[in-house]
Amino acid sequence: MSTPVLVDCDPGVDDAIALLYALASPELDVRGVTTVAGNVSLAHANRNAARVLDLAGARDDLPLVPGLTGPVARPARIPDEPIHGEGGLGGLDLPETGRVPVSGHAPGWLAEQALAAPGELTLVALGPLSNVAAMLTLHPEAGPALREIVVMGGAAHCQGNITPAAEFNFFADPEAARLVLESGLPVRVVGLDVTRAALFPLERADRLAALPGAAGAAGTLLRGFVLRYRERFGVAAVPVHDALAVAAVTHPGLLDFESGAATVECAGEVSRGALVADLRRPERTRAVRVALGVDAEGFTRLLADRLAGYADPTATTDRP
Amino acid sequence: MSTPVLVDCDPGVDDAIALLYALASPELDVRGVTTVAGNVSLAHANRNAARVLDLAGARDDLPLVPGLTGPVARPARIPDEPIHGEGGLGGLDLPETGRVPVSGHAPGWLAEQALAAPGELTLVALGPLSNVAAMLTLHPEAGPALREIVVMGGAAHCQGNITPAAEFNFFADPEAARLVLESGLPVRVVGLDVTRAALFPLERADRLAALPGAAGAAGTLLRGFVLRYRERFGVAAVPVHDALAVAAVTHPGLLDFESGAATVECAGEVSRGALVADLRRPERTRAVRVALGVDAEGFTRLLADRLAGYADPTATTDRP
Amino acid sequence: MSTPVLVDCDPGVDDAIALLYALASPELDVRGVTTVAGNVSLAHANRNAARVLDLAGARDDLPLVPGLTGPVARPARIPDEPIHGEGGLGGLDLPETGRVPVSGHAPGWLAEQALAAPGELTLVALGPLSNVAAMLTLHPEAGPALREIVVMGGAAHCQGNITPAAEFNFFADPEAARLVLESGLPVRVVGLDVTRAALFPLERADRLAALPGAAGAAGTLLRGFVLRYRERFGVAAVPVHDALAVAAVTHPGLLDFESGAATVECAGEVSRGALVADLRRPERTRAVRVALGVDAEGFTRLLADRLAGYADPTATTDRP
Amino acid sequence: MSTPVLVDCDPGVDDAIALLYALASPELDVRGVTTVAGNVSLAHANRNAARVLDLAGARDDLPLVPGLTGPVARPARIPDEPIHGEGGLGGLDLPETGRVPVSGHAPGWLAEQALAAPGELTLVALGPLSNVAAMLTLHPEAGPALREIVVMGGAAHCQGNITPAAEFNFFADPEAARLVLESGLPVRVVGLDVTRAALFPLERADRLAALPGAAGAAGTLLRGFVLRYRERFGVAAVPVHDALAVAAVTHPGLLDFESGAATVECAGEVSRGALVADLRRPERTRAVRVALGVDAEGFTRLLADRLAGYADPTATTDRP
Ligand SMILES: [Ca+2]
Ligand SMILES: [Ca+2]
Ligand SMILES: [Ca+2]
Ligand SMILES: [Ca+2]
Repeated sequence: MSTPVLVDCDPGVDDAIALLYALASPELDVRGVTTVAGNVSLAHANRNAARVLDLAGARDDLPLVPGLTGPVARPARIPDEPIHGEGGLGGLDLPETGRVPVSGHAPGWLAEQALAAPGELTLVALGPLSNVAAMLTLHPEAGPALREIVVMGGAAHCQGNITPAAEFNFFADPEAARLVLESGLPVRVVGLDVTRAALFPLERADRLAALPGAAGAAGTLLRGFVLRYRERFGVAAVPVHDALAVAAVTHPGLLDFESGAATVECAGEVSRGALVADLRRPERTRAVRVALGVDAEGFTRLLADRLAGYADPTATTDRP
Repeated sequence: MSTPVLVDCDPGVDDAIALLYALASPELDVRGVTTVAGNVSLAHANRNAARVLDLAGARDDLPLVPGLTGPVARPARIPDEPIHGEGGLGGLDLPETGRVPVSGHAPGWLAEQALAAPGELTLVALGPLSNVAAMLTLHPEAGPALREIVVMGGAAHCQGNITPAAEFNFFADPEAARLVLESGLPVRVVGLDVTRAALFPLERADRLAALPGAAGAAGTLLRGFVLRYRERFGVAAVPVHDALAVAAVTHPGLLDFESGAATVECAGEVSRGALVADLRRPERTRAVRVALGVDAEGFTRLLADRLAGYADPTATTDRP
Repeated sequence: MSTPVLVDCDPGVDDAIALLYALASPELDVRGVTTVAGNVSLAHANRNAARVLDLAGARDDLPLVPGLTGPVARPARIPDEPIHGEGGLGGLDLPETGRVPVSGHAPGWLAEQALAAPGELTLVALGPLSNVAAMLTLHPEAGPALREIVVMGGAAHCQGNITPAAEFNFFADPEAARLVLESGLPVRVVGLDVTRAALFPLERADRLAALPGAAGAAGTLLRGFVLRYRERFGVAAVPVHDALAVAAVTHPGLLDFESGAATVECAGEVSRGALVADLRRPERTRAVRVALGVDAEGFTRLLADRLAGYADPTATTDRP
Repeated sequence: MSTPVLVDCDPGVDDAIALLYALASPELDVRGVTTVAGNVSLAHANRNAARVLDLAGARDDLPLVPGLTGPVARPARIPDEPIHGEGGLGGLDLPETGRVPVSGHAPGWLAEQALAAPGELTLVALGPLSNVAAMLTLHPEAGPALREIVVMGGAAHCQGNITPAAEFNFFADPEAARLVLESGLPVRVVGLDVTRAALFPLERADRLAALPGAAGAAGTLLRGFVLRYRERFGVAAVPVHDALAVAAVTHPGLLDFESGAATVECAGEVSRGALVADLRRPERTRAVRVALGVDAEGFTRLLADRLAGYADPTATTDRP
C-alpha cells in the first residue's frame, strides 16, 4: 500500500530529482505539488516544477499549486542559488509545459487536503518552509490532520551550506522553520548531516545521462550538479538533498534518527537559520527526529535505479 | 464624501470604542471588520467585535471576518491583557450576538476587498499586524491596491507599555509590524507618543456613562478603563489608543506627523518590538509617517461627542 | 567645598569644552583625567586632552591617564566622528603639549583612586564607557568605593545620533554601558533627551570667540561645532553634550531626573546601543537616574560665563 | 627543549587533571598559572589551583595569579557546574595550601610575561576566556608577543554541553571567546568535537586511584568524574577536556585540525556562545585551527601514564 504524499518544493536541481524519484516510487502516491520561492523565484519554481511533472509523465490533472513568493516574516528576498545553474535546472533544456497551476494558494490548499483526509497525508517539504508555516499559522487545525511532515533542511552537527552555521532552506525562512519544528507535530528532519554523507557520484550520473528520456534528463541534471559541486568543493560527487528526504518516506530504514527538542535560531549575528537540537539524551516523547546516520550506498543505488527506471522499468544501473 | 475603510481589530476596550467611534462617524464608510488575536484570544475578539457591532446598530450583513490566532512568525501566544478587564471588554455585560462571522480568512478577505476597489480603501489596523502582514505576504499584489494603512502601534520617542522599549501591538507580532512598516506602502503610525498625550478624562467617561444605550455602554467601558489605569499609573484619565488611530482618518488635522524610514526591532534582548524610526531629517519621499503631536482636547471632545451621539445625535457632551 | 571628580573622556569638541568648564568651576576639584577611544582614536584623545589641559592652565602634574583603545567586548573600531572636525578638535590649532601622560592604565588607575578615597570621588564619564566598565570588571571592589558615576550617554525618549535607536557613546561600547547601568552603583545618565534640549547658540559662540586666550579658543571650537551642526541639521545652535554632564555635578538643579531600572541593548538588528529604561512608575530604590528635563537657558548662560571667565574671571558674556 | 607555557584555568576537575598532566610533562615548562571564574567562583578556582600545585609538588614560587571574577561584558555570574562535584574538585579532600597567590591581576600579569619573552610563550586557556580577552583589550601589544594560544572550548560540529548550541567555556564568556578567536593571533581550538571522542574510561581511573600520592588523587578525581558522567549520560568514560588541550601542546600529532575563520555567537535566542567556524574549504592563511579528529587511545594512555608517573616515574598503567 502506497503512502499518500504532498510535495512542497522550490526546484532547483535536487528538487527536480526528488520529484522524479517520488513519481517513480511505487511506495508513494503523490497527491499534489506546491511551490515556494527558495533556490529560485516562485515564478521559476512553478515553471520548473511543471516541466519536471511533464518529464515524469505525471497525470495532467495532478495539482500544482503556487505558494509564497518569500519568507513569512521578512520582506527580503533570497537571490537565486548559483549551484542550481541557469534557471534553476542547470540550464537543462526542457520543453515548455502546458500544465496550468491550480489557481489558489498553497497554504490554503495544503490545509484543505490535510483536513479532507485526516491522519493520512505525509507532507514532504523540500524548500524553505514558508508554505508549511503559513498553513500552520492560518489554519491551526490543519497541521494536526497531517500524518507526518518530512523536512529537508538544517545542519545539526555539521557546517551549513549558505553560512557556516546554517543550511539554505532554514536560512531562507528561519521563522517558518522554527514554527514547523516547534509545532509539536510529528516531524522528521533530513539535513546536511546525512545528505553530505550520501553523495551521488559522477559515474552514476554519467551512466544515467546515457539513457533515453527522463532517465537521461535526470542524469544530465545530476551530472551538471556534480560538476559545479566539484568545481567548488573538489569532490566529484554531490549531495542530492531533496531526494534523500523523499527516500526517508519510501525507505525509512536508510536513515538513523535521533529524537529531541529542536528549534531554529532566528536572531544572532552569525547563526541565523541554524538548527539547534537537543539530542544527547534519549527522549522518546518528542516529535522531532533528526537524521544523523545514512546508508549512503543504499540510497544512491536506490535513487539511480528508480531514475533509470524511466528508461526501462526493469533495468537497474548496477547490473549491466 | 466618506472614506471607505476596513477595520482590523482585537477588541479590547479601546478597539470597542474605536469601532463605536468609526461607525458613528459620517466621514467613514466602514466596509468590514476583521479580527486578530492580541489583547484577547481570537475567539474573544470575534465575540467582542460582534457584540460591539450589535451595540452600534451596524447593519446585519456588515462583514465580520476572523483572522489569525497568533503572530505570523512565532508559536507563542500573547496572554490576555488585564488592562482590558474580564473578557476583554472590562466585564461589560452585552447581550449575546446573532451575528455570524463570515466564513473565510481575514488576510485573503482583506486582499479581495483591496483588489476589488483598487486605490480606494483605507485599512485601519488596531491590533497586532498579523492579518495585515499575512495579507502582504500571501497576496503581494493586494497591498499596493490599498489607498493607505493607518496603524495603531509603536512608541517612537516615549516608553513602551508592554516592555520599556515596546508598545503592545508591535511587541505582540514584531515581524508583522516590520513587514508593514518596510512594505513601501503609504503607512501612518499612531502610537503611544500621541495616544498618551491625549488622555480621556474620568469626568467625560462619567458623563457618557449616564447616557442611555450605546453611549452609556461606551461610557461604562471607558469609566472602567480609566479606573484600572488610575490604579496602575495614578492618573484619572486614559489613552484611547485605537480611537485616536481612527480619528487620524476622520480628522487628519488632529495629529502632527513626521516622515521617515521606520522599522521594528525583532531581535534584541530588551528591545524586541521597539519601533525604530529615523525622523530627524526632513524626508518627503518615504511613505511612513509617525504621529508625534496631537490636539488632545480636540480629540477627546470629538470622541465624547460622537459617542454621546448614540444617545442623541444632536447632543454633545460638552453642552449640558 | 568642592566635589572631587575624575573625568574620563574622548576629546572631541564637547569633551574639550567640558574639560574647560570643569577646570573653571570652583564647585569641582578635578583630580585627574583619563582617556578612551571614542570620538577619536586613543592617540588623538590623549593628545587633545593634553592640549586642552595646557589651554586651561591646569597644573602640570594633573594626572592624565590613557585607557582603552576600543570597546571591552568587540575587536571592531569606531571610526572618527566627523562632527568633531579634523583631529577631533575641529581643526583648532593648539600648541603641542609637553604634558606626559601618566604611565599605567586607566581602569587600574581609576580603581586605585576610588579605593584611596572611599565614598568621595565622582566619576564623570564623557566617552564610551570602556574604561569604567573595565574598572568594574577587573576591580570589583572599586565601583562601590565611588560616590557617584555621572554618564554622558543614551537617548531615552528621543532619537539617537549615531543610529536612529542609539546615542554615540552607548553605541560605541554597548556592553560597557550595560555593565555600568546594571552595576547597582549610583549612576546619573545625561543623554540626548536633555543635551538636545539645551542647545548652545551661535551668537554666544561668536561672543566667546571674540575673547582672548582659552575663552576665545573655546568660542572658536564651539563656533565650528555649531556651523557643522547647522549644515547637517539646519539649526544654528548645538548640543554641548559633555559639558551638560559636568554641569549635572556642579549644578544638579539644572536637570530633572527620573529614576528606574535601565540597561542597554547589546543585540538586536537595529537597536544595538539603545538605552532602555523603565521610568514610568516612581521607584526610589533604584540607583539609575535618567535626565529628562533641563533648564536650557540656565545651562548655556552658565557655560558661556565660565568659559568667558578664562579671559576675565569677573566678566560674564551676558553683560556687555 | 621544553615549551614554556602559561596556564589559565578554572579548576574544576579536568583543569586539575590538566595541571597535573602539564606539570608532569617534560615537554612543557610551566611558567605560571592564572585563574578565572568559570566552573567555580574565582575564590574556589584559586584555592583549588593552589592545592593542585601543592599536590603536584610544584615549586613554591611558581606564580599563581588570580584573574577575573566574571565575564568581560556581563554582570551575570555563571553558577558552579555540578559535574565538577562539591567545591569543584569532586569533594576530593586535599590539604589546605600555604601557597599565596601573587598579588596583581591576571590580564596585566599575562601581558607582562608575554612582553618579557616575545614570541616564546604559549598560553593554554582552560576556562572562560575572560582573562585572555581582557589582556588583549587592555594590552593590545601583548597578544602578538605570544607564540600561540591553545584554547579548550567550543563545539564546532557536535552538540554543546551547557546548551544544545554551546560549550561551557565559550558560553560563560562569549564576548571574550569571540575577541580571542577574531584576534588574528595563532589560535588552536580544542573543543567537544575531540574531547568527547577521547573518553577516559572507568577502568583506567580505577587503576590510577589504586596508586599512592598525586597519582592516586588524580585517579580518585577522575573516578568521581566518570561516575557522575555515567549517571547523567549512561557512559562509563569521561571527556577530560582540559587535559586534551594541554596534550595539544605536548603532542600536537594526537589531534587533526582544520583551518578557517572562526567566531562565537554572542547574540541569538538559542545559540549564544556557539562556536561558528568556516572550515569547509582549505584555507591556510587564517590563524584559527579547530580540532576535529583525535587519537583517543593515544591520548588516554598518555594521560594515564603521565599521571601514574607521580607514583612511579618508571611505571605505565598499561603494563601490569
Ligand atoms: Ca529544495
Ligand atoms: Ca487594539
Ligand atoms: Ca565625549
Ligand atoms: Ca576548565
